[in-house]
Amino acid sequence: MTDFDVPATDADTVAGYFDSLGNWGRWGDDDRLGTLNLITPAKRRESAALIREGTAVSLSRDIDPEHPDPLHTGIAVVQRFMQIGEVSHHVGKDGSRFDSVTDYVGIAAHGSNTHLDGLAHYSWDGRMYNGYVVDDEVTSIRGSRKLSVSDAGKGIVSRGVLLDIPALHGVPWLEPGHPITVAELEEAERRQGVTVGSGDVLLVHTGHVARTLEHGVEVLNGLAKQAGLHASCLPWIRERDIAALGSDAIQDVQPSGYPDLSFLRPIHTVGLVALGLWLIDNLELREFVEALRAGDRYEFFFAMLPWRLKGVTSSATNPIAIL
Amino acid sequence: MTDFDVPATDADTVAGYFDSLGNWGRWGDDDRLGTLNLITPAKRRESAALIREGTAVSLSRDIDPEHPDPLHTGIAVVQRFMQIGEVSHHVGKDGSRFDSVTDYVGIAAHGSNTHLDGLAHYSWDGRMYNGYVVDDEVTSIRGSRKLSVSDAGKGIVSRGVLLDIPALHGVPWLEPGHPITVAELEEAERRQGVTVGSGDVLLVHTGHVARTLEHGVEVLNGLAKQAGLHASCLPWIRERDIAALGSDAIQDVQPSGYPDLSFLRPIHTVGLVALGLWLIDNLELREFVEALRAGDRYEFFFAMLPWRLKGVTSSATNPIAIL
Amino acid sequence: MTDFDVPATDADTVAGYFDSLGNWGRWGDDDRLGTLNLITPAKRRESAALIREGTAVSLSRDIDPEHPDPLHTGIAVVQRFMQIGEVSHHVGKDGSRFDSVTDYVGIAAHGSNTHLDGLAHYSWDGRMYNGYVVDDEVTSIRGSRKLSVSDAGKGIVSRGVLLDIPALHGVPWLEPGHPITVAELEEAERRQGVTVGSGDVLLVHTGHVARTLEHGVEVLNGLAKQAGLHASCLPWIRERDIAALGSDAIQDVQPSGYPDLSFLRPIHTVGLVALGLWLIDNLELREFVEALRAGDRYEFFFAMLPWRLKGVTSSATNPIAIL
Amino acid sequence: MTDFDVPATDADTVAGYFDSLGNWGRWGDDDRLGTLNLITPAKRRESAALIREGTAVSLSRDIDPEHPDPLHTGIAVVQRFMQIGEVSHHVGKDGSRFDSVTDYVGIAAHGSNTHLDGLAHYSWDGRMYNGYVVDDEVTSIRGSRKLSVSDAGKGIVSRGVLLDIPALHGVPWLEPGHPITVAELEEAERRQGVTVGSGDVLLVHTGHVARTLEHGVEVLNGLAKQAGLHASCLPWIRERDIAALGSDAIQDVQPSGYPDLSFLRPIHTVGLVALGLWLIDNLELREFVEALRAGDRYEFFFAMLPWRLKGVTSSATNPIAIL
Repeated sequence: MTDFDVPATDADTVAGYFDSLGNWGRWGDDDRLGTLNLITPAKRRESAALIREGTAVSLSRDIDPEHPDPLHTGIAVVQRFMQIGEVSHHVGKDGSRFDSVTDYVGIAAHGSNTHLDGLAHYSWDGRMYNGYVVDDEVTSIRGSRKLSVSDAGKGIVSRGVLLDIPALHGVPWLEPGHPITVAELEEAERRQGVTVGSGDVLLVHTGHVARTLEHGVEVLNGLAKQAGLHASCLPWIRERDIAALGSDAIQDVQPSGYPDLSFLRPIHTVGLVALGLWLIDNLELREFVEALRAGDRYEFFFAMLPWRLKGVTSSATNPIAIL
Repeated sequence: MTDFDVPATDADTVAGYFDSLGNWGRWGDDDRLGTLNLITPAKRRESAALIREGTAVSLSRDIDPEHPDPLHTGIAVVQRFMQIGEVSHHVGKDGSRFDSVTDYVGIAAHGSNTHLDGLAHYSWDGRMYNGYVVDDEVTSIRGSRKLSVSDAGKGIVSRGVLLDIPALHGVPWLEPGHPITVAELEEAERRQGVTVGSGDVLLVHTGHVARTLEHGVEVLNGLAKQAGLHASCLPWIRERDIAALGSDAIQDVQPSGYPDLSFLRPIHTVGLVALGLWLIDNLELREFVEALRAGDRYEFFFAMLPWRLKGVTSSATNPIAIL
Repeated sequence: MTDFDVPATDADTVAGYFDSLGNWGRWGDDDRLGTLNLITPAKRRESAALIREGTAVSLSRDIDPEHPDPLHTGIAVVQRFMQIGEVSHHVGKDGSRFDSVTDYVGIAAHGSNTHLDGLAHYSWDGRMYNGYVVDDEVTSIRGSRKLSVSDAGKGIVSRGVLLDIPALHGVPWLEPGHPITVAELEEAERRQGVTVGSGDVLLVHTGHVARTLEHGVEVLNGLAKQAGLHASCLPWIRERDIAALGSDAIQDVQPSGYPDLSFLRPIHTVGLVALGLWLIDNLELREFVEALRAGDRYEFFFAMLPWRLKGVTSSATNPIAIL
Repeated sequence: MTDFDVPATDADTVAGYFDSLGNWGRWGDDDRLGTLNLITPAKRRESAALIREGTAVSLSRDIDPEHPDPLHTGIAVVQRFMQIGEVSHHVGKDGSRFDSVTDYVGIAAHGSNTHLDGLAHYSWDGRMYNGYVVDDEVTSIRGSRKLSVSDAGKGIVSRGVLLDIPALHGVPWLEPGHPITVAELEEAERRQGVTVGSGDVLLVHTGHVARTLEHGVEVLNGLAKQAGLHASCLPWIRERDIAALGSDAIQDVQPSGYPDLSFLRPIHTVGLVALGLWLIDNLELREFVEALRAGDRYEFFFAMLPWRLKGVTSSATNPIAIL
């Protein structure tokens, strides 16, 4: 696979991305939206035009309190508590013909559930996107005063593009730890006849879910090995000006190839902190990829609607595509 | 307001709706989607054509753990717990230049937050929509095996229509307890030049949020008085075959006008159980209604994407409209 | 009530208590037990000798998720979630003759439940008891590394003494906001024939529960008015070297008489931080006081057994007395 | 080990214990205390006389949210969430010299934490102790209306006796799955010079914690193998009329020797349901056993003080012994 050799990109180069690729100040000193600024009204109109058949596909994994992490790839806290018979509880069995069930749900969405990473999730040298200082903005009581997922309250509705890297290689899935390069992304674009552009939501298919269900997870030093983008893709991501990045794994290749812990997940760190790029972890793409391949069509209407929950760094919600 | 007198509809008549209006079996004996079956591919294409300007508006109230119920109209459990400094916690302050914040969120969405009511939320004589038996399907450990919000995993994406009842009356808001009638709904349609049809998501504007913020809530027998649809609207709802019903209050007028507890909330009870109609409680419509009035346009692209969380009767998520 | 006038004690004097009354270093620079050091083996033997009849009385309020704060005096988060039918859930109704129920309990014990305040609960100028620095020791992930209630793992078992202040005044309860003085404490000792000494657990009866159930709570500036010890009692508390202090209210009189927020609760602040004094809030003493009065006996065996839960500032547990 | 062969006791015999050993009705038809009725005032006086040195030892494992199950023997949900800087959160950093930290604790005590099993924990043929019907008494909203741990609000304070089975065999610990017999219990009594009697709290030392920390847990069919009492001990337990039974494992030997799931844990099932016997799971006895052996003394003051939490089947609390 000579054409797709990982380019030499040392840790200092990656550290330099915080300056060279940064979007700080690009949309104002008090901006909290980061790359979601790239989703313009025109972009939403463009996405609408991609609804041709009208078929919708969920891109989310099930969230199941009884099986919170079927892939065994991470941490997953999902609690569901039921209150059954609310009305009869108060008035007795014969007090009412109608009755009701309610529930309490607790979730730590970071982990192996499908979720949006808000921009407050990661920091570098104590600063979050746009220079916000963690120590000033994040407290145990209030949560993150800035860069909460609630800032994305208008939703993430845009043109979606999926790049199908296993198909590029003619394999059902990438091997765990496979670092995806710019060369692969661009070859996939050519092969699929699609070009990633400003304001797009880019989904990268790795086959991680299918492989893990078949062969189980490979753990290295406590970390699940996963195919994903190599740090050298960061300038390309910035250049293409995508609005959000998602994958059926966690975007970053694991291990990243950098022994220094600071560079454990460069796509996350540079993406969230420098670019203000919203990330969508742990998608379920199997059904969707089949549909895309069948239609030989890789652009689509994409929607993800984060909670308007104040002060949090994650939102478990259900992204969909419409073809 | 003679034209809009509430029609005589006694409790027996409402009880009869469970048979006369019921959708049980209409989409098969094992159907779990209810009125979401009415959102066809064609309907999604129709909704796409309504994205004209490309401006998105959130229809959700903020969910704020520090102010879980700013209207004081109900119960609202929202917990947010932060884990700050995950990386430095494990490796020390100097161990990494990157660090991370994560969170645990707990929510009992039924109450005064914006949320979707799943079909397992209510029952009548021990049965849920399509005849599922509560005692067979709902347990404290597994939750609701049938009719969970996760069944709506493809999302609720359709044409939205808003009927602006305060505008019909030339008032800023309806008084708490105002029962909205079919006559008002149809007069609002005429006035606004819009017709509610099959598969639509109908939003009914009552002005509840604006009024409550101005004057506070009025509580009667422990229940917040709210304007909403009178039980006599149920045949109309069934006839129009809407896919989902939302409001800036809770759809049902409170009090309902029926002293028997069984008829506390007929729109909820008949809607969820007999029709299989998904309900969206507690919207925030103030900004949106201004935009609609300004554009004199009352149909729009609507999207709500419930969690794929198994076994639950509610999903707090953030519905949006795009004009 | 001239004899019991509150002595002039200005805020500077109270601030001075942090130095003049402090136990920092008294039991070593790394001490975490504070006044629990005063409960010696001899003290436990002394307490054992007070078990004469062998009758036990709980001094705890009920903790009831359905009525978490019956007095309406504070915040009370108590969650109870049941898992019913664990065995049949897995193997079906006929799979086993035995079955099991389990539960999840969530509690924020600070508030109106009966609980132990650990020494990490309060700080003064950023420092906790014995000089531990809050910013160094307390994090959102690990909790409080020092001074957790788990440090009291051997339990608080000692001689208990109750001072019955309403009885001193011949009234059923003290009025909310009544500041108890040293003069009253000592007059109560004389009247009851009991002397508070080193290592004792002192319980101060105010009648707060009985009064609040009868007349409701009085709230002033968002704070429940409660009878309790005036700040001028602090030197006396230090001099008597008590091991723990409890009350049917919260020890501190509310309001404290000091407009400066720093002195909102001087007994809590000086007690926990300077003295390392463990506090037991919100006891239920009604039944117990009746028994003590009937027997004209005010010393007893006392036990409270905090959780060995690492890193927390509170423990909801059930103190008992044995006569 | 011929002397200690497990007596032939077939499943039908164990099933017969529900009748032959049952305490239903013994203390009245509405009794909720079961064997705690055996802790009389005289028994508490007897326990007081056992406080000779005055040294206290905790018998609880640490409860640590970061390491909820260090033995890897079961399920352990322990959540700790901190609220740091409550005062400065509201009034700013300079608003007050005092500040406060509070916490929320969530725990599912059944599992591998030290906890009391309340009588509502297990049922047989749908009935709990004293004939209470699970379906009538336990709901997801209210919890268990009968037989909650709060019924033990006066605490479990009595004479404690420890039987040291590894010492009997001259080994550091029993092997996992070792079934303890009546012969061993009685031989341990003779060897230790102690006799278990009415109202006692019996603690059985197996060495489970020490062994598991050294060699890890052995799991068989999903269940941790543990030494514990064989079902044939049940008549002896009933005959001795103990008030509570605890162990450093879970009382029951695992596996129990009975293939039928109904007899997975006969000590738990017959104990809780038929006898109304309160069980204390997962003690930490290492330090305590050393002290007992050093003093050659096996009776002591025992105290465990369950929460007064309504409706629950478990209480995580910290039992202590005083020598």
